[in-house]
Amino acid sequence: MPVGTAATVKGITPAELVQAQTQIVLANTYHLWLRPGRETIEAAGGVHRFMGWERPILTDSGGFQVFSLESRRRLDDDGVTFASHLDGSEHRFTPENVIAFQQAIGSDVAMLLDVCVKLPAAREEIEEAVRLTTAWARRSAAVPEASGTLLFAIAQGGLDERLRERSARELVDLDFPGYAIGGLSVGESREEMRATARSTAALLPQNKPRYLMGVGTVADLIAAVDAGCDLFDCVYPTRCGRNGRAMTRDGELNLFNAAFTRDYGRLDEGCSCYTCTTFTRAYLAHLFRAKEMLGPRLLSYHNVYLLNALMAEAREAIERGGWAAFRDRAGV
Amino acid sequence: MPVGTAATVKGITPAELVQAQTQIVLANTYHLWLRPGRETIEAAGGVHRFMGWERPILTDSGGFQVFSLESRRRLDDDGVTFASHLDGSEHRFTPENVIAFQQAIGSDVAMLLDVCVKLPAAREEIEEAVRLTTAWARRSAAVPEASGTLLFAIAQGGLDERLRERSARELVDLDFPGYAIGGLSVGESREEMRATARSTAALLPQNKPRYLMGVGTVADLIAAVDAGCDLFDCVYPTRCGRNGRAMTRDGELNLFNAAFTRDYGRLDEGCSCYTCTTFTRAYLAHLFRAKEMLGPRLLSYHNVYLLNALMAEAREAIERGGWAAFRDRAGV
Repeated sequence: MPVGTAATVKGITPAELVQAQTQIVLANTYHLWLRPGRETIEAAGGVHRFMGWERPILTDSGGFQVFSLESRRRLDDDGVTFASHLDGSEHRFTPENVIAFQQAIGSDVAMLLDVCVKLPAAREEIEEAVRLTTAWARRSAAVPEASGTLLFAIAQGGLDERLRERSARELVDLDFPGYAIGGLSVGESREEMRATARSTAALLPQNKPRYLMGVGTVADLIAAVDAGCDLFDCVYPTRCGRNGRAMTRDGELNLFNAAFTRDYGRLDEGCSCYTCTTFTRAYLAHLFRAKEMLGPRLLSYHNVYLLNALMAEAREAIERGGWAAFRDRAGV
Repeated sequence: MPVGTAATVKGITPAELVQAQTQIVLANTYHLWLRPGRETIEAAGGVHRFMGWERPILTDSGGFQVFSLESRRRLDDDGVTFASHLDGSEHRFTPENVIAFQQAIGSDVAMLLDVCVKLPAAREEIEEAVRLTTAWARRSAAVPEASGTLLFAIAQGGLDERLRERSARELVDLDFPGYAIGGLSVGESREEMRATARSTAALLPQNKPRYLMGVGTVADLIAAVDAGCDLFDCVYPTRCGRNGRAMTRDGELNLFNAAFTRDYGRLDEGCSCYTCTTFTRAYLAHLFRAKEMLGPRLLSYHNVYLLNALMAEAREAIERGGWAAFRDRAGV
């Protein structure tokens, strides 16, 4: 899922997202709540019409962003109060009101409000996050359904295997349509992330979507698919794209490297996106050096296109029983 | 001609320029000379292949940019020496070497090196600019031709009718394939600009392209077409686009105005561009408020599309003998 924080995948139009085989985008409750706000999106006829995107949209609950605010938020058993990063105004999220918001704007998948802990953290802190996340999931399950919006719960537990088991079990008992693995990519090592994603995925229902949050490199995606995950989101491809970092199947390239200024080859030989079929590395390098906005735009598009193509190939490999070979060829 | 200073029309792909009916783009000798430099563009196979644009490209001579540097340049009878705005390195333009550069990168239309004076200016200064511009044009006419690159001369003379006449006459005597009206949009009033553009256009051959430099608003374009001009360039549509200013046939809109945050109408009712047919004013206003790069991108595209559509309609009106009615309806 390309990330469209503020109801726009940075620099990419909905038409291009479709060209790039995007099936679903992610938008952020926290950001949309603050700007443009629920009323503006509702009056537009929902977030799909507002942003001109007809395919599915998953919205996160805002929990991750709020807990990133650290000194600007106050947690209690009922919810979390925080100060807007835009103007300092005070807002409050509860399990109920973040679902109401996501239903009101017409999200296809609404994430539950969870408590996300930055790692490393004390076991007590992680245990408290697990307890509250389950308590809030229970309250979320009691919110009246809105047609068209599915609720996904988020398993927490840091790197602690027993807390992960407890979180997953308690949430699975509540029988949500889908599950996410949260609380990763928050300070732990790549190996720890992969090990915990793998063990947690195994605790979640195989017949429901399993969504690993915050993961976006080629290698991490292959590893996560191998662990059984189905959905991913990350700002990585578009952030890299804005900063001159190209993702390819053979690793990443920094377009500011001097070598590229006279490299008239394709950005990625194996890629059939507009950027790769139209422009050379030398031209893209020029755009970044000249601080031209076409550079971030073209490279963001390529990175998103590449990850979508990679996932399409992964699905195809799984369907024809060739996953292990695909994974090994990808060299993860 | 949308302006592609650094071999890119800011934020717009070549494919979109074609969709927007762009017939020709302008690029800047001054900028391309400094970055990426002649060798990089030549090695790419010329500026068309470098930037992925197959239709005509007109390059200015760099004169306008160099004279804008003011304290960073030194003029003599043979040419002009200047310090790069990028790194302070010293460079020199002569009538001959700017043509050689434009021929080398494969420009379809190369502008001659001229002396452009910021207004208001003393008569002596403008007269000296006219003298040197003619002297340089004479030297330019002696440069061996390169197939595919036409040379256009630039008439100067400030707002002084007699100096304009002298400049135009001297250049017309040299029999170039096309002529530009330079030295306007450099500090004079809109009325002065229009009056001088009209009187100068009348002094240039009717059977050759007449190019009014640096003009880009809807009203100025209509007035210039009425004066007999055929070609225009200006950063105005893309600069406005980047800053939230929408051009329409009925005037300009500032998307930061609070009224637009809940305006779910089209940006421009009469426009059939992707931006207007896909998004609302409210969404575009949101993008600019959230500093999302999709905003500048979509609005730059609309502004370029609008001016191209306007010029297409103007051509059509002229061809069917309906120009006066078209001009009067445009309300200039």
